[in-house]
Amino acid sequence: MTNQDQRKPVMAVVGAGPGIGEAVARRFASEGFAVALLARTEDKLRDMANGINADYGERTAQYFVTDLRVEDTVIASFGKIRKELGPVQVLVYNAGARRVNGRSILDTTSEEFENFTKINLFGAFWSTKQVLPDMLAASKGTIIFTGATGSIRGNPGLSSFSPGKFGLRSLAQIITREYQAQGIHAAHILVDAPVDGKLIGGWSRRKWAKEGEDQKLADIDAFLMQPADLAHSYWFLHTQPRSAWTHEIDVRPQKESMFSKL
Amino acid sequence: MTNQDQRKPVMAVVGAGPGIGEAVARRFASEGFAVALLARTEDKLRDMANGINADYGERTAQYFVTDLRVEDTVIASFGKIRKELGPVQVLVYNAGARRVNGRSILDTTSEEFENFTKINLFGAFWSTKQVLPDMLAASKGTIIFTGATGSIRGNPGLSSFSPGKFGLRSLAQIITREYQAQGIHAAHILVDAPVDGKLIGGWSRRKWAKEGEDQKLADIDAFLMQPADLAHSYWFLHTQPRSAWTHEIDVRPQKESMFSKL
Amino acid sequence: MTNQDQRKPVMAVVGAGPGIGEAVARRFASEGFAVALLARTEDKLRDMANGINADYGERTAQYFVTDLRVEDTVIASFGKIRKELGPVQVLVYNAGARRVNGRSILDTTSEEFENFTKINLFGAFWSTKQVLPDMLAASKGTIIFTGATGSIRGNPGLSSFSPGKFGLRSLAQIITREYQAQGIHAAHILVDAPVDGKLIGGWSRRKWAKEGEDQKLADIDAFLMQPADLAHSYWFLHTQPRSAWTHEIDVRPQKESMFSKL
Amino acid sequence: MTNQDQRKPVMAVVGAGPGIGEAVARRFASEGFAVALLARTEDKLRDMANGINADYGERTAQYFVTDLRVEDTVIASFGKIRKELGPVQVLVYNAGARRVNGRSILDTTSEEFENFTKINLFGAFWSTKQVLPDMLAASKGTIIFTGATGSIRGNPGLSSFSPGKFGLRSLAQIITREYQAQGIHAAHILVDAPVDGKLIGGWSRRKWAKEGEDQKLADIDAFLMQPADLAHSYWFLHTQPRSAWTHEIDVRPQKESMFSKL
Repeated sequence: MTNQDQRKPVMAVVGAGPGIGEAVARRFASEGFAVALLARTEDKLRDMANGINADYGERTAQYFVTDLRVEDTVIASFGKIRKELGPVQVLVYNAGARRVNGRSILDTTSEEFENFTKINLFGAFWSTKQVLPDMLAASKGTIIFTGATGSIRGNPGLSSFSPGKFGLRSLAQIITREYQAQGIHAAHILVDAPVDGKLIGGWSRRKWAKEGEDQKLADIDAFLMQPADLAHSYWFLHTQPRSAWTHEIDVRPQKESMFSKL
Repeated sequence: MTNQDQRKPVMAVVGAGPGIGEAVARRFASEGFAVALLARTEDKLRDMANGINADYGERTAQYFVTDLRVEDTVIASFGKIRKELGPVQVLVYNAGARRVNGRSILDTTSEEFENFTKINLFGAFWSTKQVLPDMLAASKGTIIFTGATGSIRGNPGLSSFSPGKFGLRSLAQIITREYQAQGIHAAHILVDAPVDGKLIGGWSRRKWAKEGEDQKLADIDAFLMQPADLAHSYWFLHTQPRSAWTHEIDVRPQKESMFSKL
Repeated sequence: MTNQDQRKPVMAVVGAGPGIGEAVARRFASEGFAVALLARTEDKLRDMANGINADYGERTAQYFVTDLRVEDTVIASFGKIRKELGPVQVLVYNAGARRVNGRSILDTTSEEFENFTKINLFGAFWSTKQVLPDMLAASKGTIIFTGATGSIRGNPGLSSFSPGKFGLRSLAQIITREYQAQGIHAAHILVDAPVDGKLIGGWSRRKWAKEGEDQKLADIDAFLMQPADLAHSYWFLHTQPRSAWTHEIDVRPQKESMFSKL
Repeated sequence: MTNQDQRKPVMAVVGAGPGIGEAVARRFASEGFAVALLARTEDKLRDMANGINADYGERTAQYFVTDLRVEDTVIASFGKIRKELGPVQVLVYNAGARRVNGRSILDTTSEEFENFTKINLFGAFWSTKQVLPDMLAASKGTIIFTGATGSIRGNPGLSSFSPGKFGLRSLAQIITREYQAQGIHAAHILVDAPVDGKLIGGWSRRKWAKEGEDQKLADIDAFLMQPADLAHSYWFLHTQPRSAWTHEIDVRPQKESMFSKL
């Protein structure tokens, strides 16, 4: 049995990690979408899909192991999605990769530069090419790219990240200008602050606990972006009426941290 | 009887014209807000308030005649709003004024420059000062400024418009950085295309009718921004959770016209 | 005897303070220009003019006391410049005013907002109107506005500064788009770091001396912008060939400080 | 005999085509530099080098055939430059490649996307890595990247161009923030209009001749950017004093054409 029988609309999250990616998938699942999860590590994908299916019904989520540095695996995954779930109506490209500790240009190998830029930029180009034909046939489709501070500011240590992210933003603009008249709504979300995920959330909680910052711990959603709250903006963009489409938004937590640059 | 009895939250639209201003007021009215309408012409304000009250209940809307070039009338209007409706929770500054036909700098009088800049910029500063104290007392408030293409691009013929609009955008950023930690969410909406109002909508419809452009007339919401659709974005910004606040968005119709600059 | 006899080209610096303003005046004087100095305080203007004349010849510099909040004094000064020196070929609007210690919006009076915005923005509009007719008659003219970090970023404490500075940048763009085809080259210089003037230079030197930062004192031109070095960029803009005019540049010292935002 | 004997400073132009690249090389040659020309086609490089040497002296220019899609050839060329001319003091990365007629995303092959992005972005990363060590050893170096309208605006038809060009701009910012304190001046020149080269210049001249646009032909430097005039800005950036370095400038001809977006 496939989604064809269920006639659910399909959305695909590329870079379906446990932060924004999963939250967006869950939000669309809760609104009646079948969700395709694409990422590299099968174990994590399986757990995520199982969790979503437990909450929103069997076969709501399916996963597709994909190496975003290799176009063939991207083509193969979208081929399977099409066959198993149906044409993609919403594409969220959420993959973003870099070394956790930024390195200077001289300490960044050309292999790192190429691999990360492929994940940050090329994978979005390849994914877009896979979903556009069905979207154009339907005169309808939403493509959302997840950006970062590094999408608009070339900060030190980010040579393997920012160039791809800058490029990704331009790609969203190009999709808009080439295909909006045919019904494609492309948008770029600038996530300009840390997200409350395992790494940053855990580190912040431990730090604030040690420092006795109880207020900060109680107000953590004012300091760190909550993935589910971020997913709200993705859903908003998808549901905007065509006479007032938004193409670029930023998001930050209320108590903008040192990380952010409005 | 005042709104105090009704305990409705209060929103104020400054520059409550028949396009975006009215649509935003209606959207908030439909969500349970009492709305204060501020503009210069009493007749138009009265009709607008009557219409809203007919649709959403007596005393939903009240109007306050205000000359945005004169701080005293701004102070007076907000004083009355506070007394009659209660503290403002949402401020939408929507006023924007310019000559319909742009004039070059040498053809723009200093009086025009000053009057329009006061409406486009000063009025927002004065209005913000009136509502901030109550918002800070409540640790809660939303302030949304309506921008235009001229907010980010100094186009010819707009010397009495763009400087004020550029400045307005900076003011939104300053409110964010000064007051977000205290609960104030400020945002700037870049309305980067023509809105389907009396002037542009009427002119476009007549032109397309004459040219036999039936498809364009049928799809008018793809070419001209519909005020109610725009209002959707204002409501979205107001209801965003604090961990993922947006500060700047753009809006354009699907079939981006010659007017727009993404 | 007037400049007419000398046939020197004329440049005017509005906001002729002891930092950038004086340095730009000196650079143009050294290149053979007659310079008109406009500012508010007669004593300072007189000293500056005397210094320039001592270095570059009698009657090189003349000063014109001007209150940039009052259009009439601007008109009067440019009238005198025209009569005494001749038509202005280069206008540098360098005035920028704010409280040294930024105040929040609620602590900024409407009078401060208006006065500073008039200096930061209105004065440039008025000055531009005075010089454009002669420039257009000559099919030649350069207009340069001095911007600041606050011209592109609404930082906290700057509500009496940033809106005017944002607006000033838009005005430079408008001049370009309205008048470049007629020979007017308008440009905006974003001075995105502290300048080595009396206030900041003195404070930094005292601080670094106390901290034993001898290297910083020796390399002070790497940390604080030297007015004469800045003036180099003004001259560059004025002398660019018309086939490759620049409209916006930024300037920062080599060892970008905490103040700067590239 | 090598440049070592002559003790000339060395500059390298990557993407040494007959427009900007050659003009910049000639400007630096005229100022006493030895110039290394890197591009793909040996015949064109040889002619260019011969022409420069005829005008500025034997061994002023040397050429190095390089395929900018292949890192090894980049490394090899810079190795030879170092050996034959000495350490590079100025790097100008001028390569920019795209199809002359823009194609939509669906009509752009992944091979085109990758090849052009490598030329537009990767080649700059690889080249920068080759020259930085010597620049850091000398505590001195200038790196200038040539941008285009597509560097800040994702226009239709440019999916194989804009992403790389956006990324290139971010790379210039990263170099600045990582290495400016050590003496490296990086800058990005946004060439926001057509350059008077063989293709566009020839086409424009034929068109205007046919249309009897004699004034346009006489004023061609007001409509099309002259490479030598552009080179003036590269030289300006290289010679700026360190207390007032510029990192981003735009250039356009006086009579801004339909191509430009200020």
